[in-house]
Amino acid sequence: MYESKQISSLQNPLIKKISVLQDKSRERKKSGLFVLEGLRELQLAIKGNYTLDTVLYQGDLISKDVLFQMLDALVPQSNIVGISKEIYAKLAYRKTTEGLLALAHCKPHALNELVIPSKNPLILIAEAPEKPGNIGALLRTADAAGLDAVIIANPKSDMYNPNIIRSSVGCVFTNNIAVGNTFETISYLKENNVACYCAALTALKNYTEVDFKTPSAIVVGTEATGLSQEWLDASEQNIIIPMMGEIDSMNVSVSAAILIFEARRQRGFF
Amino acid sequence: MYESKQISSLQNPLIKKISVLQDKSRERKKSGLFVLEGLRELQLAIKGNYTLDTVLYQGDLISKDVLFQMLDALVPQSNIVGISKEIYAKLAYRKTTEGLLALAHCKPHALNELVIPSKNPLILIAEAPEKPGNIGALLRTADAAGLDAVIIANPKSDMYNPNIIRSSVGCVFTNNIAVGNTFETISYLKENNVACYCAALTALKNYTEVDFKTPSAIVVGTEATGLSQEWLDASEQNIIIPMMGEIDSMNVSVSAAILIFEARRQRGFF
Repeated sequence: MYESKQISSLQNPLIKKISVLQDKSRERKKSGLFVLEGLRELQLAIKGNYTLDTVLYQGDLISKDVLFQMLDALVPQSNIVGISKEIYAKLAYRKTTEGLLALAHCKPHALNELVIPSKNPLILIAEAPEKPGNIGALLRTADAAGLDAVIIANPKSDMYNPNIIRSSVGCVFTNNIAVGNTFETISYLKENNVACYCAALTALKNYTEVDFKTPSAIVVGTEATGLSQEWLDASEQNIIIPMMGEIDSMNVSVSAAILIFEARRQRGFF
Repeated sequence: MYESKQISSLQNPLIKKISVLQDKSRERKKSGLFVLEGLRELQLAIKGNYTLDTVLYQGDLISKDVLFQMLDALVPQSNIVGISKEIYAKLAYRKTTEGLLALAHCKPHALNELVIPSKNPLILIAEAPEKPGNIGALLRTADAAGLDAVIIANPKSDMYNPNIIRSSVGCVFTNNIAVGNTFETISYLKENNVACYCAALTALKNYTEVDFKTPSAIVVGTEATGLSQEWLDASEQNIIIPMMGEIDSMNVSVSAAILIFEARRQRGFF
């Protein structure tokens, strides 16, 4: 039988700390810790070699024994902590999930440490994506497409914003992610001989007419303002998804998916 | 100079009616009226031949003269009504928009009245989409791809849910939309000799290996449960988007966009 500490007070310092880490990017940066929620997310974080600090579970929703077996050797037994229903209700965003929260260590995502696993990479760059939900959706598509890396240029939030984790359905843990400013990112791509294909509403070249079979980065900007001039200047080819209706822009995660899967189609899927 | 009625009381019956129509699908169904918000949305509704009942404007945010000229002959002058800042703040979802709300007549979207403008149509079918935001995103992609029709099978909300209008950025007004149950919709497609290509995680056929150049309906289900067996049985070919990462499903609006734009690529864009 496994034994674990139980917390039932909302005033417990660990509970207060978790609550603050959920809310405040600054606190995540300071402590290097973030909070994740859900069984799948926990499994993907483990698979992505994240270091877990503490795992909290609500014993009515998840079997303690199953959890202890799953976490065997990954977390000291003393850092697997039972929490009351009341605490779980306060901390969990999705009340219907699996009674599971964890505190884990952030990765640095430094661009100069980004290792691209393929000699012929396909990379996604998103410049200054505004909404955490959009970043999450991009990461989900990047995972599905088996991209070699995702670089977020000039991010407006840290990667461990709970809305990013949630909307990525844990793909923030499975992708090879780096963060950098626009200048660094362009330099990095040049050094690594990766050509940029920048999505731009002003472009003349249809995205299906581009050859994505050589080392390629698909670069997308925001819906509101598009990509900065630096990107358009650094681009091998600016590309457009032709639009045939009344509107003149698509959601960034939708456009990116269309571009990424066209590249995938050209390269073959496996 | 144009003159208009001014409303400054939150207790005004028209204001109360608008508030109820925003909230309650039942009231929209009963009255046949819905509320839209924003200049672009109003322009797209006019372009989509919607009949406007009343237009409300906040005079500090939009020029009355410009508005009256735009609405000339579309709305009786007596049905263009000024509202106070306080009322606008209560009714408007996006506080930063253009000081414009309108009451308009719903379209029936009856499947037996759906006219497909092309002899070689490309159609999107979404079965029971759960979230208004997903329906909105699908409609936005359908507009961009110039689809001939969108059919929502077994919808869980009416088309005039404010979240659908908003997330579609007005594309609920620009698409050729019908609503029907699964059985009716399958019959309709058969009668019109449109082949169904159903997205299914169990399918063996890669979506890029299918010929979408003949009359085609791309059919997508929900993320949670996929398509019902009726659809899979009625399908010309079940198709899959190969996924190469850790997760096994994509957002429905992302998958649909990948499939739709592959069909578009095969058919040519214009």
